Amino acid sequence: MASNFLKINGERLNSTLQDTCTQHGALAAPSTGMCRLTLTQEDKNARDWLVAECNSLGCEVKIDQMGNMFAIRPGTAKDKMPIAMGSHMDTQPAGGRYDGILGVQAALEVLRTLHENRIETHCPVALIDWTNEEGARFPGAMMASGVWSTKSSTPLEACWDIQDKQGIRMKDALRQIGYLGDTLCDYRENGLECHFELHIEQGPILEKEGKSVGAVTSVQGMKWFAVRVEGVEGHSGTTPMPDRADALVTASRLITAVRDTALKTELGVATVGVINSDTSSQATIPAGVNFIIDIRCSTDDVVEQLATAIFKVFDDIIAQENNGTIYKVERSWGLPESKFHPHCINAVRASAVKAVGENQIMDMKSRAGHDSAWTSRVCPTSMIFVPSKEGISHNPNEYTSPEHCALGAQVLLDAVLYYDEKVKSGQY
Amino acid sequence: MASNFLKINGERLNSTLQDTCTQHGALAAPSTGMCRLTLTQEDKNARDWLVAECNSLGCEVKIDQMGNMFAIRPGTAKDKMPIAMGSHMDTQPAGGRYDGILGVQAALEVLRTLHENRIETHCPVALIDWTNEEGARFPGAMMASGVWSTKSSTPLEACWDIQDKQGIRMKDALRQIGYLGDTLCDYRENGLECHFELHIEQGPILEKEGKSVGAVTSVQGMKWFAVRVEGVEGHSGTTPMPDRADALVTASRLITAVRDTALKTELGVATVGVINSDTSSQATIPAGVNFIIDIRCSTDDVVEQLATAIFKVFDDIIAQENNGTIYKVERSWGLPESKFHPHCINAVRASAVKAVGENQIMDMKSRAGHDSAWTSRVCPTSMIFVPSKEGISHNPNEYTSPEHCALGAQVLLDAVLYYDEKVKSGQY
Repeated sequence: MASNFLKINGERLNSTLQDTCTQHGALAAPSTGMCRLTLTQEDKNARDWLVAECNSLGCEVKIDQMGNMFAIRPGTAKDKMPIAMGSHMDTQPAGGRYDGILGVQAALEVLRTLHENRIETHCPVALIDWTNEEGARFPGAMMASGVWSTKSSTPLEACWDIQDKQGIRMKDALRQIGYLGDTLCDYRENGLECHFELHIEQGPILEKEGKSVGAVTSVQGMKWFAVRVEGVEGHSGTTPMPDRADALVTASRLITAVRDTALKTELGVATVGVINSDTSSQATIPAGVNFIIDIRCSTDDVVEQLATAIFKVFDDIIAQENNGTIYKVERSWGLPESKFHPHCINAVRASAVKAVGENQIMDMKSRAGHDSAWTSRVCPTSMIFVPSKEGISHNPNEYTSPEHCALGAQVLLDAVLYYDEKVKSGQY
Repeated sequence: MASNFLKINGERLNSTLQDTCTQHGALAAPSTGMCRLTLTQEDKNARDWLVAECNSLGCEVKIDQMGNMFAIRPGTAKDKMPIAMGSHMDTQPAGGRYDGILGVQAALEVLRTLHENRIETHCPVALIDWTNEEGARFPGAMMASGVWSTKSSTPLEACWDIQDKQGIRMKDALRQIGYLGDTLCDYRENGLECHFELHIEQGPILEKEGKSVGAVTSVQGMKWFAVRVEGVEGHSGTTPMPDRADALVTASRLITAVRDTALKTELGVATVGVINSDTSSQATIPAGVNFIIDIRCSTDDVVEQLATAIFKVFDDIIAQENNGTIYKVERSWGLPESKFHPHCINAVRASAVKAVGENQIMDMKSRAGHDSAWTSRVCPTSMIFVPSKEGISHNPNEYTSPEHCALGAQVLLDAVLYYDEKVKSGQY
């Protein structure tokens, strides 16, 4: 078996990652942050580059109806689906160079290593760039892997219709950059043997514990609630203070209650990041305000408990204000708790032990959502975590050392080869 | 004097007002609301129509560097500047059919009445449509009359550079709709004898007092503060609640404090209508949040007192949160208290008494800002208020009866003729 001796090229991985970030969506220096929103010109340029790279390595590249990219390196077996290495190249509006990007770049490094060493695998091996993982331009995180899994509550046509802030429909954005593919976005038509994802932890645990690899066993449950507060629009100069039904004041009281309730109950985390007022005039008492609550807890039951506690406080606040403002939950959606597959977890553990030894690795839950949460519903899945400096993520200061990036890529390669060997020998 | 017998045509005024609202910027029926944001296609269409109407009445139409439109009907005296009737045709994003629009339409009705009765005035008479009174698209209310007065803290070039939400610069928007004129936007180059403005009250006082006309003696002081709250961006799933420096939570506490402080101190009104979060991602703790505070009190001193009280509470909140979030006032601007001119106030009073008798009129302060606040700094000015149903304004339900609209236009005509007579006889 070649895998015992096969090494990825860490220097090549890190320089490719940094160079492509600099070229496609970097924030102005000295920031090392990124703004590579999905389906923008920057994303298109990064995709075009990746397609060319994968083609040069002998991969067939398929684009599906959501713009997901599958670059497939053939295997010797004709009846097997690909062993996939997936993640995403889009970022937050002010994100970092590692969240998502590392997973795709590491997958490319694996393909390069297999190619230059002329390794023949049993199963095909695929690199996947999932579209709009961040949900930062088109609301709805992990959107396109959700469609592919057919398990998301937002199916293809609904996703196509989602608009960005400028009113551009996702389907039009896909078409505009040339990534509205004709491969069906459905795992039953374009399936995978299994799915591995290398990702930065985005939290402080590995660093605190002094470990260098996490074998991810599950993703915690999360749920989003789009809330609308309604009051009565009015003139800021002529409407007396006691007569107001001010939607933004009520929304502000509710938002502070989201934080206070999560802190007090200690059930999990709850966040409001997105807020929009109906008015763009400083002289208008807004008629309405929209915001989104993001709730995440260790299990789906606890998510429900925390949501219930928050909305109970909302009801109390509305009753206390008693000024004609109301709130309603206009839409809720979520990612249920995801348990990963023992076969994939074993492949990650075994590969990590081989790379750094038993005492440098740990099992962990993911507290962030990932495309792997959706793939885990329809094919064996696990993830590899490497440390994030100070746990900072969704921020230009996000950082993972070159050594940890290279280590993650090595574990990814070995996990793929481990799994391939098990399939070949009929054990998986 | 013809003025004793000259009557405006109320039916023509009201049908023209309603028809042009329906054609240029009406919200979808059954709402009678308007969205005619400044310098949009709807605004251009309304302007084009108005230019054509004024030309057909023998007026010369001048457009200045801020797109302000001066339609001037010549007088017999060659050395006099125009007696102006000004207001604005732009609206809030969800405004009504009367705020601003009534003043311009009544001015047109006055011009029509003078024209069809072949009245020769001593001074020229001008209709003015002031650009961007609302400040709803390009932040900064009464922007273009402020530039014209040369007394605003935001001069021409700075206004030209202000961008709307789509990043369009005001100068480019003016050019795009063909209203970037070459008349200098400066009262010293393009002056007025005096300025009258008919406007709806936008408050409940006339209705409550059972009066039908207000002679406006002043505009209360108002000030705006653009506040930025800064925290630390982070991932909504992986950042523990106690470790967060959440800019939106802190901003929410500050916004509730704006209301609570204004209510408690009873010094005036204070409002936050505009809010923007740095992030458009539901999964991000925002690094920053911007909002604008609008403070209005009976005098400038009291405005300062209320602002001081609010920022004192802000400091207490920041100290209490003690989580690394901070706030700063990035920009403040305002409209100082404006006292109107006795000559113009007398013209309005005398005309109102003639129309409805002494006991149907009252003197009043304006609690909303108006272009007349700026003109009053450089030429004699007063305003005519007519009742607003329930005081509702900046809202599609804004309403003033056809009878009150016609009454306002009649008082406007008579005030212009009264003032003209006084100038002719050398008394003003």
